[in-house]
Amino acid sequence: MRSFFKVKTAKDIFTSLKDIKPLGAKSVPITGAFSRVLAEDIISGEDLPGFQRSTMDGYALAAKDSFGASENLPTPLTIIEEVKMGEIPRFSLHRGECAQISTGGMLPKGADAVVMVEYTQKVEDGVVEINRPVSPLENVILPDDDVKRGQVVLHKGSMLRPQDLGILAGLGITMVSVIQQPKAAIISTGEELVDISKQPKPGQMRDINSYTLGGLCLKLGVEPIYCGIIKDRFEDIRLLIEKGLSQADVVLLSGGSSVGVKDFTLDAFLSLDGVEVVAHGVSISPGKPTIIARKENKTLWGLPGHPVSAMIIFDVFLRYLFGKLLGLAGIMEYDSHEIEAELDRNIESATGREDYIRVKLSRIENRWLATPILGKSGLISTMVEADGIVTIDMNTEGLYKGDIVSVRLF
Amino acid sequence: MRSFFKVKTAKDIFTSLKDIKPLGAKSVPITGAFSRVLAEDIISGEDLPGFQRSTMDGYALAAKDSFGASENLPTPLTIIEEVKMGEIPRFSLHRGECAQISTGGMLPKGADAVVMVEYTQKVEDGVVEINRPVSPLENVILPDDDVKRGQVVLHKGSMLRPQDLGILAGLGITMVSVIQQPKAAIISTGEELVDISKQPKPGQMRDINSYTLGGLCLKLGVEPIYCGIIKDRFEDIRLLIEKGLSQADVVLLSGGSSVGVKDFTLDAFLSLDGVEVVAHGVSISPGKPTIIARKENKTLWGLPGHPVSAMIIFDVFLRYLFGKLLGLAGIMEYDSHEIEAELDRNIESATGREDYIRVKLSRIENRWLATPILGKSGLISTMVEADGIVTIDMNTEGLYKGDIVSVRLF
Repeated sequence: MRSFFKVKTAKDIFTSLKDIKPLGAKSVPITGAFSRVLAEDIISGEDLPGFQRSTMDGYALAAKDSFGASENLPTPLTIIEEVKMGEIPRFSLHRGECAQISTGGMLPKGADAVVMVEYTQKVEDGVVEINRPVSPLENVILPDDDVKRGQVVLHKGSMLRPQDLGILAGLGITMVSVIQQPKAAIISTGEELVDISKQPKPGQMRDINSYTLGGLCLKLGVEPIYCGIIKDRFEDIRLLIEKGLSQADVVLLSGGSSVGVKDFTLDAFLSLDGVEVVAHGVSISPGKPTIIARKENKTLWGLPGHPVSAMIIFDVFLRYLFGKLLGLAGIMEYDSHEIEAELDRNIESATGREDYIRVKLSRIENRWLATPILGKSGLISTMVEADGIVTIDMNTEGLYKGDIVSVRLF
Repeated sequence: MRSFFKVKTAKDIFTSLKDIKPLGAKSVPITGAFSRVLAEDIISGEDLPGFQRSTMDGYALAAKDSFGASENLPTPLTIIEEVKMGEIPRFSLHRGECAQISTGGMLPKGADAVVMVEYTQKVEDGVVEINRPVSPLENVILPDDDVKRGQVVLHKGSMLRPQDLGILAGLGITMVSVIQQPKAAIISTGEELVDISKQPKPGQMRDINSYTLGGLCLKLGVEPIYCGIIKDRFEDIRLLIEKGLSQADVVLLSGGSSVGVKDFTLDAFLSLDGVEVVAHGVSISPGKPTIIARKENKTLWGLPGHPVSAMIIFDVFLRYLFGKLLGLAGIMEYDSHEIEAELDRNIESATGREDYIRVKLSRIENRWLATPILGKSGLISTMVEADGIVTIDMNTEGLYKGDIVSVRLF
């Protein structure tokens, strides 16, 4: 048994991962682009909507023809035509004239505003009374009101939301260049592990980490490659890691990284060409027995065997790493959903390490109450019971009942 | 043109949708179950881990053998064996004996605790000195510590998180019964609309709503069925709605629901057997010209043509509806990500309707500032610029600069 020889703080590790470069781009149809990350700025090639459009159902008119109109003294206008949707009106309005128009219709020449149908009354065939004045451009969208030609409408590194797909559609951009989906090879190690379809004998456990880590990948839009369980034999581990490295951007190997057995993991990492150890032990609890290594732009993770610890390490570091691989501009907001809550009891913490505390939330009147869940990090049930995680930073000795804490929903 | 004849408040509409029933269940492998909704309670058929397990690397021992041990006066114990991972130890400990054990190993008979390797020192072959006492059960997980046989580990109606997949894996549950994915048929109507691959002529627009609505569906885990654009011809609209209704749980038809043209939508809805109108107009801005109809457990939505309005209506009502179709227990938390921010200017609002205000967020020191985005609801760019939405309820006349508001990230 040898001890951790390169224990790093979270900050050190972020620094080591800072220069991870985004993956390559690929072109996808916009129906397949939701929540993908843009690989390029999107610059509009045209004005949107490109013509003067009505935003209401009513009558297109020259605003000045409505000045002075009121309910007591409505202004009568002659309806000379109806604007056909999707067509250029082939007529012009003159003094005292208007044209019926629907939402989205193109304004005819001579019109600079639209009066809503609600403020009009048809008095006889071909004549409508306007009982409220409109200002020039009222209820009208100008040709470049939505987007101006040459404008950057979406920025490289942004994750596409429904409205972003909408603006792409509006501009006729049917295919878009996005960063490739990162892939993670997931390997579980341990003599005691059996596949989830098997009945474990006493002393054996079913593989939990492949599924929690796979789920965490899916949550981030990362493709998990399930490589299964490997026994504690150096050569087998080494070969499987090598295979993972050839197929994926990230290799997640869990178990076998405590001081006892883990030598295999570390040695297997180091036995590969060009691999450097970034950390052997991290000052995070739970999660200390973690090994991080790097080969150019790919990283290898020896995660703790305890399911809770492996999940915490993933959340702290892999989320950041995948954000880097995706070239996300808002990397700190990537899948971060936090709420403020009041702690309902004291929590002790050792200085010199970051503590991640599982909490259960309950709603008391208008505020959230966070109750720490105490329980060993080998118990997946504690994570199932938890609604989120509270971080206690390295220089804090603990938190007090009544403190307002930020809970990362999990 | 006819006016809205059945304007409803949001509350009325939620009431009308309250009895929507969850869709049927299907069985999926747990690798395909992330973020799906459980259709049944999961009750454990066994204890987990099922045996006494070590949570540390170190030495299994009888705790009482370590009492009194200290750095100055360590207690020597005889190492009689090493516990093999994944196996039942075929030996028992007697007074003064211990066994080497790794994390996850099964405790041998006679042991009730584990001392961490960090608090021991091997003095000679077969003898280790313990320099700290351990209490009974220290660093040990009992056979039912994680899960007890017969315990409900996951509840019907919960959306599966990574840790939930982990507990299923741990219990050997490889297939799980989840609610079927809801399907939404998406139809855009309007004489002025052209497909996004086409160059619109003046007066024409590309179809935006199919893509924003499709994206919103995907965000909620709903399958969008893109039905394309249909011109304003009653019989065509009717047929396409009928087809949508046969393929999907929800029909989303956008455009053609303002007072002018929309008659088609309403009439088409009403022309179908067993369809009842729930609302014709909603007291929400933007989004008033919305038609909602229902046929048994399926609903038909005539959404506004303006992209922003259609998105707001989707977010307010369809999110709730899909939560119902999924049988989600935490329906109010479904895709709800809110933060508190300080409003940076006054916003007026009419009483008698709910206003949904687009806002842009910026970070000033430690707080979020929300800046309202003013702009017509026909402009998709305002939604692209926005980071979220602030709701002003029916009985509020407006909000003031400096007010703390809840921003729903969007």
